[in-house]
Amino acid sequence: MKNSNNMLHFTFLGTSSGVPTLTRNVSGLAIRNSKNKDWILVDAGEATQHRIQQAKLSLQSLVAICISHAHGDHCYGLVGLLASAGMNARTAPLTIIAPKEIQQWIEVTAQLTDLHLPYPLNFIDVTEATQILSLTDELSIQAHPLSHRVPSFAFSIIAHYTQKKLDTQALVQLGVPKGKAWGDLQHGQDIQFNQQTLKATDFTQIQTQRIHAIVGGDNDRPELLEKACQDVQLLIHESTYTQAVLDKVGSGPMHSSAKRVAEFAQQQGLSNLILTHFSPRHQDYAGQQAIAEEVRKFYQGNFYLAHDFDQFSLDDIGQLTKIEKS
Amino acid sequence: MKNSNNMLHFTFLGTSSGVPTLTRNVSGLAIRNSKNKDWILVDAGEATQHRIQQAKLSLQSLVAICISHAHGDHCYGLVGLLASAGMNARTAPLTIIAPKEIQQWIEVTAQLTDLHLPYPLNFIDVTEATQILSLTDELSIQAHPLSHRVPSFAFSIIAHYTQKKLDTQALVQLGVPKGKAWGDLQHGQDIQFNQQTLKATDFTQIQTQRIHAIVGGDNDRPELLEKACQDVQLLIHESTYTQAVLDKVGSGPMHSSAKRVAEFAQQQGLSNLILTHFSPRHQDYAGQQAIAEEVRKFYQGNFYLAHDFDQFSLDDIGQLTKIEKS
Repeated sequence: MKNSNNMLHFTFLGTSSGVPTLTRNVSGLAIRNSKNKDWILVDAGEATQHRIQQAKLSLQSLVAICISHAHGDHCYGLVGLLASAGMNARTAPLTIIAPKEIQQWIEVTAQLTDLHLPYPLNFIDVTEATQILSLTDELSIQAHPLSHRVPSFAFSIIAHYTQKKLDTQALVQLGVPKGKAWGDLQHGQDIQFNQQTLKATDFTQIQTQRIHAIVGGDNDRPELLEKACQDVQLLIHESTYTQAVLDKVGSGPMHSSAKRVAEFAQQQGLSNLILTHFSPRHQDYAGQQAIAEEVRKFYQGNFYLAHDFDQFSLDDIGQLTKIEKS
Repeated sequence: MKNSNNMLHFTFLGTSSGVPTLTRNVSGLAIRNSKNKDWILVDAGEATQHRIQQAKLSLQSLVAICISHAHGDHCYGLVGLLASAGMNARTAPLTIIAPKEIQQWIEVTAQLTDLHLPYPLNFIDVTEATQILSLTDELSIQAHPLSHRVPSFAFSIIAHYTQKKLDTQALVQLGVPKGKAWGDLQHGQDIQFNQQTLKATDFTQIQTQRIHAIVGGDNDRPELLEKACQDVQLLIHESTYTQAVLDKVGSGPMHSSAKRVAEFAQQQGLSNLILTHFSPRHQDYAGQQAIAEEVRKFYQGNFYLAHDFDQFSLDDIGQLTKIEKS
């Protein structure tokens, strides 16, 4: 059953690898629960707070920040963002799931730069977030180790939506009239009908929809996500280079090529793939075309190359839609 | 004598106090020697490197970074900028003049975030830069203590231009013909003329032009700059609020009002004043008008309120010109 209210919304805040360019910022991705304003930030390269402002997201409704790894292009925007949330009078606690170096960095930075946040940080070491962790009634998260020059992680973002569904067919068969009686049952209240007690639990059923996306940090071994990807509806993964450029650059930087990710997605039978974190050399038209052609060659599913401010929705039947800008 | 080649160029990279807004970034100011590409950066709030890219300034020709004080809106862009200069293959040493907390912050950040710069940092504690310090053949700097919630400093940016001037009047009177003889004297070579030796030193004179601007950090006591301002041609100072707003906010934040800076500039007889570092509440049209009116009331000199990407030139006769965007 499709329920268009239940979706995850993705806003790419930065899609450049290593350095910002004139058209793309360093890494940042906002994932919002469409049912309310709750959102999660994955990575916070420098100027992520500027992108958040431009994307009209509120730092007040941010529930958690996940940092995939402690490289500057994924975390140097974190302290400024925290400071601005404080100056905007945030008081609600904020969860940060990140390598332990990030906690140390925040603490040292606060001390050296006279930063006093008016809200508590709930810091969770990412190595202790490899079991599913509930963030809100509807949003959960789970970290998966990757392979990079420093410890790096992917994050499962899982939304659970439950709703109570009334067995209208049975009620019609019994001749129970629509209206107050149906409403009472829906709200869990037993009713009297034809001298019988109709129990709400007999005529209602809890239905659960689940949406699952994985957002990877820097990683040269997509196959590490094999198990995590078993029920995933969308994988968002770095694709820093084409295979030809990766061969030239060598394995030192420990990034993935488009080919490597595409082959993995194909083997797993993933239905949706979004690639991001492009080297500046792949950001012009020709560079993007080269990446797209390589993906197309090795992967038959639905895929996109992310640009800054691109927005996507993923619904509870796993349908990924690019939201066209109005 | 006016020489239009000898100028300091100022590009405002951020003019907002505390937090970035949609139209203004946090503090950053580029000061370029017009004779070559050498430039100095004063303050590096988050996303200063993005502004540098947009302003088409090169991180390769940056000779020094001065940080006025260790508050995030003046320094959180520093580590990302250093990292990007490294990724852009800078190898030349870079001087950083800043409070000692900034050195500690850079070192801890590099260690925690796997940052390895391919060029040396020449770190100078700002408290040891209160004497004039030569940065290049033409650019010098001097720090002046201010009054703020943490140690804060202003920087004198001083350009010295020397040129050898030939005493053409004397040569004409002696009948020395233009051409090789004049050229030799200009280049410091003695010549023979009418059986006499004409000494180059007798016919040439070293002329020096000096340009002096002061760029303040956060400060609630402009009068601390009284001595430093004695021969200054331009003062750039924060003016976070109008006096009415400062009275309401109270003295806690330790910022200056437009009135306070204007009165100081008037008492000193300063000819040029640029105000910056405006509270978000003063960034709309009405807010800027209120600041401008207050300055006009207390100061009769030439003044501007800086916007992001505004450019100014200051020449060696102390003339400040706003450069209109082409």
